[in-house]
Amino acid sequence: MTVDRARLERRMAELSAIGGSGTSVTRLGLSPEEQRARELVGGWLSARGATVRRDPAANVYGRFGEGTGPAVLVGSHLDSVPDGGRFDGALGVLCAVEAVEALLDDGVRFRRPVEVVGWCDEEGARFGIGLFGSSAAFGRLPGGAAARADKTGLSIGDALRAIGESGDPVQAKRETSGLAAYLELHIEQGPRLAERGVALGVVSDIVGILHARVTVHGRQDHAGATIMSARRDALAAASEMVLAVELAARALADAVGTVGEIAVRPGAKNVVPGECVFSLDLRARSEATLEQLTRDVRAAIRRIGDARGVRSSVDVLSRVAAVPLDPNLRDLFLRCAAQVGIDAPELFSGAGHDAENSQLAGVPTGMLFVRSTGGSHNPNELAAADDAVLGARALALALKELAG
Amino acid sequence: MTVDRARLERRMAELSAIGGSGTSVTRLGLSPEEQRARELVGGWLSARGATVRRDPAANVYGRFGEGTGPAVLVGSHLDSVPDGGRFDGALGVLCAVEAVEALLDDGVRFRRPVEVVGWCDEEGARFGIGLFGSSAAFGRLPGGAAARADKTGLSIGDALRAIGESGDPVQAKRETSGLAAYLELHIEQGPRLAERGVALGVVSDIVGILHARVTVHGRQDHAGATIMSARRDALAAASEMVLAVELAARALADAVGTVGEIAVRPGAKNVVPGECVFSLDLRARSEATLEQLTRDVRAAIRRIGDARGVRSSVDVLSRVAAVPLDPNLRDLFLRCAAQVGIDAPELFSGAGHDAENSQLAGVPTGMLFVRSTGGSHNPNELAAADDAVLGARALALALKELAG
Repeated sequence: MTVDRARLERRMAELSAIGGSGTSVTRLGLSPEEQRARELVGGWLSARGATVRRDPAANVYGRFGEGTGPAVLVGSHLDSVPDGGRFDGALGVLCAVEAVEALLDDGVRFRRPVEVVGWCDEEGARFGIGLFGSSAAFGRLPGGAAARADKTGLSIGDALRAIGESGDPVQAKRETSGLAAYLELHIEQGPRLAERGVALGVVSDIVGILHARVTVHGRQDHAGATIMSARRDALAAASEMVLAVELAARALADAVGTVGEIAVRPGAKNVVPGECVFSLDLRARSEATLEQLTRDVRAAIRRIGDARGVRSSVDVLSRVAAVPLDPNLRDLFLRCAAQVGIDAPELFSGAGHDAENSQLAGVPTGMLFVRSTGGSHNPNELAAADDAVLGARALALALKELAG
Repeated sequence: MTVDRARLERRMAELSAIGGSGTSVTRLGLSPEEQRARELVGGWLSARGATVRRDPAANVYGRFGEGTGPAVLVGSHLDSVPDGGRFDGALGVLCAVEAVEALLDDGVRFRRPVEVVGWCDEEGARFGIGLFGSSAAFGRLPGGAAARADKTGLSIGDALRAIGESGDPVQAKRETSGLAAYLELHIEQGPRLAERGVALGVVSDIVGILHARVTVHGRQDHAGATIMSARRDALAAASEMVLAVELAARALADAVGTVGEIAVRPGAKNVVPGECVFSLDLRARSEATLEQLTRDVRAAIRRIGDARGVRSSVDVLSRVAAVPLDPNLRDLFLRCAAQVGIDAPELFSGAGHDAENSQLAGVPTGMLFVRSTGGSHNPNELAAADDAVLGARALALALKELAG
């Protein structure tokens, strides 16, 4: 089975040029750039004989319809964060197209329909709704999503109407009985494969995530006249809490904790901070670990607040359950990786992915990670062409087993 | 010697109504509110027979000129921070006016001229130049001060011209040979007098201050995909540094350290902070202690950065030397406090004051603190009327000894 490396690399260059500048890519959900990306991918699929359609949530599908029964869906997302990289999402769509073409090149005839999908707005960077397109397709969109607006005031509904859709993304919901499986290839966005020196990994679970906002109420005081022992410094208390989050996450296997936003009031160099607000992002491979981490962090915040005489509160903003992916598809990906010479480790995904929506909707779902370096959501994000080719080959083998 | 408590309280109410709302006062430097405050105080002084003038830096002076030789200057500042309290600065001007009037009421004739001053823009909250008026009067204004603009783009020069001055505050410089002493009464803005249960304190020194900006360069990473051990979290490093500042200041006598501003980049809940910038405000009673504190904090910042693999830099923005005030005037205030029944402790001032400018310019300077509660630079700031009366009486006695 022959993956065409030159074709894959050429298409990578074509796709990353849309919204791209150097190695930076800005292709926000429902932007003109994302629309051009959909048209580019749709064109490749159509040229290869697929029936191409866009759904009411602006997901693009290309169906190769020779077989019968429920289809095998394969793909990833086409959007990026602002000033993001070339590979997050895009590589999964490119490898899905390449895997199908490689199989067709080899004369494989599909016994089931195969659909390649390019999901709309996975990042949620513009409207604040992550996994937008796949949530719509799998009936998991939060209420009132169409009314959510970007910072210019333009709503998702408006943006959909502007490209000719009805403006109601809920209509994108598809019958899961028509789907046999969903496969997604994605860059790892983390260092585990690079550290192990392995090109591919198979995702066992997608983490559960708790997002919260912590507010610390101390007492605003004069920075010169208030002796150290009389202070109730909200930032000093918050600093202890930030370190406690780090410590609690380090103490648990397969867990991470991040404080990514922080602000103090009044925010003057010569005033002891009276209030501090910071974000909390807690993730773990399993629900049990996430519950433990959440308890540990809450207890530390209480303990630190009590010791310093400051009040604090934790407001939970969102809570996404940990999702174990389909064990049969995990085994299938492990076998296919072995067939291309890779002893792929099982990894959990620390990031959310469109794949969690299909699995939660009851569609057996498998995910393959490709090694990446340079971090993620930034222009240094990098998956080597060799690794991408290996990923596309393993994906093609899995597709062949499911639908060939 | 009779201080008129009712007059003092009535004037306190009149002055704090200018820019005031409830117990909150906003009377920024060179604002219309500060100008009205000058007119109000000038009116009282003029009605009592003083020669009132405004100088090119918008300081207001009322001179009682019966005596000969160098004058005794007494006063404080008329501006406030935004949403500040009623007492910071204002109480010192009110008590200076009251002290002079009480002496005149008692038939005291001055053998030297006595000048009451209301300094312009001590806080620097609008144009960023603290101690503005007194710096101008004592020839200590930083270069280019007139061009410094507020956030609307209006410069100090413009603001001065708008009230009829030349726009060149440097011209406010006065000959120090014409001044025998400067006395200032001010609220403590800290808890030491309240904790000791004493109404008055005498200032021995004004702290030295170092202002710096610390920048921590970590690595921006995906909050889900980056395992804890692979992170170079700029905020976690900065949090350790904030706690190290607190620890270093606590370890030294008569020293304080504050981080009042902090910002992270990119500042998203699901991104490990790549950069963190925070302010540093270090103060100590003596130069030796401030040097020690600065060394300790710098060493801790280096050590934490090294241990976490993040780069950090410390940019010094300003450094003000610690200023010992005049020992004779300190003893005079201690005696006068004793005469009104108060065993006043010697305190250093953790805040900067206009008094440091006169002392540094060679004018013997003394400062009297009045007990305050509710913190400072906020509407809860409070000096009890009983304490204010005691302060005004001690100030009047000192003035009588110097000029009566």
